[in-house]
Formats: sequence, C-alpha cells, structure tokens
Amino acid sequence: MKARIEITLKAGVLDPQGKAIEGALAGLGFGGVDEVRQGKLIEVTLSETDEKSARQQVEKMCDDLLANTVIENYSYELV
Amino acid sequence: MKARIEITLKAGVLDPQGKAIEGALAGLGFGGVDEVRQGKLIEVTLSETDEKSARQQVEKMCDDLLANTVIENYSYELV
Repeated sequence: MKARIEITLKAGVLDPQGKAIEGALAGLGFGGVDEVRQGKLIEVTLSETDEKSARQQVEKMCDDLLANTVIENYSYELV
Repeated sequence: MKARIEITLKAGVLDPQGKAIEGALAGLGFGGVDEVRQGKLIEVTLSETDEKSARQQVEKMCDDLLANTVIENYSYELV
C-alpha cells in the first residue's frame, strides 16, 4: 500500500522558498504570477495491507516526523 | 487560476532525502516501511484566466525553471 502525503505551509506562514521561486520566475520574464507556495510531497510504500492500520501509521508518521504541525498542514491519500 | 505542480524524481534516480526519511522512520520504530521517495509540490497562482494559455505558461515554467527534466518528472492540475 502506498501513501502519497502532501505537506504544505499553513496560510500566513512566510514561505521564503516560494518567494525565491516567484523572484526567479519574474527574472525569467514570466509575468502574471501572483503567488508561489512550495510544499513537500512524500511517497511512503508500506507493507501494511489493512487500510485502517495504514491510515493510523501514516498519521502517526506525519505527526511525529514528517510534518511540523505548528506551521504545516498535511493531507494524504492511500493508493 | 491556480496550478498545483508535483515534481518527483524519475524511477531509478537515487533519492538521498527519501533514504534519510526512511532511516529516521525506522529509528522511531516504524516498521513495515518499504520505500520513501520525496518530491516537491509547488502552487503557482496565475492571473491568467484562459485555461489553454495557463497550461502553456505552467509547462514552460516547469521546463525552464521548476523541474530538472533530466532526472525529474512533473505533473500539474489547474484548480
């Protein structure tokens, strides 16, 4: 079972990487870019086959290690 | 119009960040993790309202700056 986890900064949290990309796009002549936010995408392949246990494992992984829940949100889907 | 761009390493390309996460998860006692791959998630807010032009812009941004197409794949959706 594979979990695709998306981790994004909460609204209002400053995103220097996003700002850097925004500046680079402007420098390359891309107009009309209002905002850029960068997040992380983590794909975890689990040997677990039960969906409920897999969800519990993934949520614990996110809370304990993958996401900083003070400033980041996470969402995931099992595929 | 907002583009959600996912950038992932191509299959077979070594992913040291993913390996580090795998090691950290094992260290925290998470068994049953077969593989971890890390990618990037970039949200670009465009002032463009025409879908076709937005697609062209996003693809050019990915090819020119956001993704290294030698080792990375990208996909996106407009929301």
